[in-house]
Amino acid sequence: MNKWLRVNTRGGTVHVERCSDQELRWGGRNLIAKLLLREVPPACDPIGRYNKLILSEGLLGDTILATAGRLSIGGKSPLTGGTKESSVGGEAGRKMARLGIKAVIFEDAPADFTPRVLFISKKECRLFDMPDLERLVVSETFGKLRERFGDEAGLMCIGPAGEMRLSAAAVAVQGEGGGQVRLAGRGGLGAVLGAKGIKAVVFDDREAKPAEVYDPKKMREVSRDFSRILLKDPKTENRHKFGTPAVLSLCNELGILPTRNFSSGRFERADDISGETIANLIVTRGGEARRGLPCIRGCVIRCANVFADAHGRKTVASIQYENIALLGANLNIGQIDDVAELNHLCNEAGIDAIEAGASIGVAMEAGVLAFGDAEGAKDLLRQVSQGTPLGKIIGSGVCITGKVFGARRVPAVKGQAIPAYDPRALKGIGVTYVTSPMGADHTAGNALETAGALDPLGTHGQVEASRRLQLRGAILDSLGLCLFVRPAFVKDPSLFGRMLHARYGWDWSFKDIQNMGKECLEDERKFNQMAGVSEDFFEIPEFMRDEPLPPRNTVFDLSLSEMKKIWDLPPLEDQF
Amino acid sequence: MNKWLRVNTRGGTVHVERCSDQELRWGGRNLIAKLLLREVPPACDPIGRYNKLILSEGLLGDTILATAGRLSIGGKSPLTGGTKESSVGGEAGRKMARLGIKAVIFEDAPADFTPRVLFISKKECRLFDMPDLERLVVSETFGKLRERFGDEAGLMCIGPAGEMRLSAAAVAVQGEGGGQVRLAGRGGLGAVLGAKGIKAVVFDDREAKPAEVYDPKKMREVSRDFSRILLKDPKTENRHKFGTPAVLSLCNELGILPTRNFSSGRFERADDISGETIANLIVTRGGEARRGLPCIRGCVIRCANVFADAHGRKTVASIQYENIALLGANLNIGQIDDVAELNHLCNEAGIDAIEAGASIGVAMEAGVLAFGDAEGAKDLLRQVSQGTPLGKIIGSGVCITGKVFGARRVPAVKGQAIPAYDPRALKGIGVTYVTSPMGADHTAGNALETAGALDPLGTHGQVEASRRLQLRGAILDSLGLCLFVRPAFVKDPSLFGRMLHARYGWDWSFKDIQNMGKECLEDERKFNQMAGVSEDFFEIPEFMRDEPLPPRNTVFDLSLSEMKKIWDLPPLEDQF
Repeated sequence: MNKWLRVNTRGGTVHVERCSDQELRWGGRNLIAKLLLREVPPACDPIGRYNKLILSEGLLGDTILATAGRLSIGGKSPLTGGTKESSVGGEAGRKMARLGIKAVIFEDAPADFTPRVLFISKKECRLFDMPDLERLVVSETFGKLRERFGDEAGLMCIGPAGEMRLSAAAVAVQGEGGGQVRLAGRGGLGAVLGAKGIKAVVFDDREAKPAEVYDPKKMREVSRDFSRILLKDPKTENRHKFGTPAVLSLCNELGILPTRNFSSGRFERADDISGETIANLIVTRGGEARRGLPCIRGCVIRCANVFADAHGRKTVASIQYENIALLGANLNIGQIDDVAELNHLCNEAGIDAIEAGASIGVAMEAGVLAFGDAEGAKDLLRQVSQGTPLGKIIGSGVCITGKVFGARRVPAVKGQAIPAYDPRALKGIGVTYVTSPMGADHTAGNALETAGALDPLGTHGQVEASRRLQLRGAILDSLGLCLFVRPAFVKDPSLFGRMLHARYGWDWSFKDIQNMGKECLEDERKFNQMAGVSEDFFEIPEFMRDEPLPPRNTVFDLSLSEMKKIWDLPPLEDQF
Repeated sequence: MNKWLRVNTRGGTVHVERCSDQELRWGGRNLIAKLLLREVPPACDPIGRYNKLILSEGLLGDTILATAGRLSIGGKSPLTGGTKESSVGGEAGRKMARLGIKAVIFEDAPADFTPRVLFISKKECRLFDMPDLERLVVSETFGKLRERFGDEAGLMCIGPAGEMRLSAAAVAVQGEGGGQVRLAGRGGLGAVLGAKGIKAVVFDDREAKPAEVYDPKKMREVSRDFSRILLKDPKTENRHKFGTPAVLSLCNELGILPTRNFSSGRFERADDISGETIANLIVTRGGEARRGLPCIRGCVIRCANVFADAHGRKTVASIQYENIALLGANLNIGQIDDVAELNHLCNEAGIDAIEAGASIGVAMEAGVLAFGDAEGAKDLLRQVSQGTPLGKIIGSGVCITGKVFGARRVPAVKGQAIPAYDPRALKGIGVTYVTSPMGADHTAGNALETAGALDPLGTHGQVEASRRLQLRGAILDSLGLCLFVRPAFVKDPSLFGRMLHARYGWDWSFKDIQNMGKECLEDERKFNQMAGVSEDFFEIPEFMRDEPLPPRNTVFDLSLSEMKKIWDLPPLEDQF
């Protein structure tokens, strides 16, 4: 991984560049932060010629470590207007790493939007038209790509939403086994790829060899230790059994489950859409239904699943907590089969299910359809793929939907929908929503795990907690590891140094690792400041400061000045 | 004019407040700039509880001076996100001034949106429901208000667009004679009034007496001198004959007439929609058609008109250059009757015709309808009033329309549509679009009048010119006079001091006047900086720097850093 590809999407040319020694030390999210800051005018049009869409491997992306190979996708976001990184599992990142490619940088933009495919193998990098993919939904696109490029290819594509350059468009990646679709959902990066005229990227790693590692023996050792700690952690077992939906009951109990456009934090029918219910249905329905699947080959956590209907036919794979919350409780839809189908329709259109669920919630409150109208919601999502005016509104995300329907209760921070954790009853995550360069994004620093140690309704310690969590996110996203491996590093922060030494021979202390995360956040903030994306201008939505959230009946009450202290806190200690 | 009204739109109460000595010296646009800065959180939701909608009289609003009584309407703009003032003629401002009211400040917001009317007479200020006005278009609303409040009332209302809180919604005011409708068009302030639940404001000045003036004799003298200079100016004669459409042929010749979504600066059928054509048709068609009308009683310029169809039946009153450009050439529509009807439909919906024309232009380029499809464009504007999803997109302005349709060629600066002067061939106005706190707004500093003295295609002197023009705008908008009176002050800047002395007994030098304008712009910029609305983040659209504009084939090439020097230029001399 010492080279990157620059794809000129106007000229149709691909250039291979060797990285400098300094650039070699950038990976994943950190590489995106640095390239955007260096090469993209912060105030540029996100779907214009001057934005870049970057696929970026984490520093450990080409190793045998559990979860390694998660891919960072980045660019200036059409939703937030700021820097954006969205991390995704699945096989594409793994194969790109195996091909020795550190990053793919899509530059400029074509005058027209004929669907093009970038094919990358050991022998060639080629950009070519595939007009028969035009406006195909994600499953059809993957189907056609599979036919043409074979079973072993790593696939990535956008759906109709990305082709239409809708601001909530995602990038889809095929996951390991079971026809899983993984989405780099947040931030609208599918629209940026669409604006580059790229419908799909195909990685053919058949003739590639595994990466040459500095110390293979030490890598095997640290990998074994890493997996062992992960397997022992009770969270892993829980995730393996119930997947991310495991937390739905907890969120409902805490009173942070977005319900009816964030008007309640508790949903009467939460049990019907909970992790336990899903796990049971997967077992009892059988057929294509599965749980405990990896999204990347070799993962020991294996939180993915295949959800199937009553006949055992796959509805969606994988179904995750945030999507259930936003497409279920938030829309007053308590039938899990409806929720699964809604999620599937988001995947097919290629839009972020969180953003879509929030948009439909606002549309429901505006009277476009009734809360609880599952068939109406499905119709809306089909309209996204079809590109009707209403579908395009929904596909443009919650802020545009709110604007168009003249709504005041718009759950978003920095242009992006608030995910499945209402900050009024989990204050720490509100600090993340406001201060993170990513806008409202739970993966940027999810305070849910602090709910035991800190009073989630209180303000004490939340700013500090958010900072620690944000740093963690930046570090793991820059290494190419899943956020779910954090218990291992909390237990043994020296693992970082061992891993990087085994891979590169570098002698990085834990402090160096922390500095990498800090620098990443700082670079992101610099870009955002020049792009006009600051917490000063985009705060927690007004209604969340004014309207107490049942059942806890608290409002969000951390002041902006308190939250802004986050970047001036004293340096962190040796704690991950 | 030593008091203002605070209307609490949640509680339904109206309070009268006496102004302090300092506040007495604020008027029109300057008063809005100061109140917003003092009382409105810059980052607030424009249609939320914390924004305020302000009706503000200019300092000379209650005098007998020609054009006095233009009303400034202001608030945080749903389009730009920044401070906004939109000046409007018609009778409402005149009557509000006669009632001795310096400003009406609408605060907070109701939970529901039943249409309410604020009635103001010498005896009472009352807020009451008028549910039968719900979703009525502007002419129907004025009709019902006229029926109820009589011929002498000064009327102001919003259309369905404002009720739906669409970002391009305007505030309509009835003009003097001929059933003229005047719109405070720019900035989406109709949506702010709609968000306050206010459908209309009625001024009944029947029992009010003319304002007590410090020196009535001197006022009559300066008024006479003022009118005399104006009447002698050749521009006045031209405006009287042809109205604002007079400049269409000039703009076409200069190559700055927006044509087919700003892809050309010259329109093949410009002659068919020119000021001369309109003036001739008004004369030959007769019937209700009129030209040379005042929009405010007592105006000596009288640039308003009534445009009628082939049967002499009124189509729209008044028809103006910017609307013809954006709804005609910009949509490739060359039939003036179509353009007039489109303009009428904008007035009926209560949306800014400039913003609407720009939005439809983008929709045409996106393939929603064909360039030149006049019937399709009319249908779109009817859909705005009906509130279909497509209508709501168009009614949300050109940036939202661009976002929803994934467009790159979006003619807007700071969220607001570029008006009828393409900055690629009139560079000075581009400086105004970028640096004015108002965003793309020709009334904030229109460089058209400098096209003789400065090369409009060159960059030389444009920054200085824009500053002078912006200052002028701020001064006239703060006095409550029409921009068209500027020739009188250019000829004799001492008129300002004489007018203010006659009205108030103040001894203001021309420098004091200039300082008032400067302070107004500075306050607006301060608000915008805290709201995240800066030229650093919102520049000339990328396509205007990349695509040469036929027929001059120039791009916009003033650098941002050059333009930003505008605020550091040395103090102006004694020149208006």
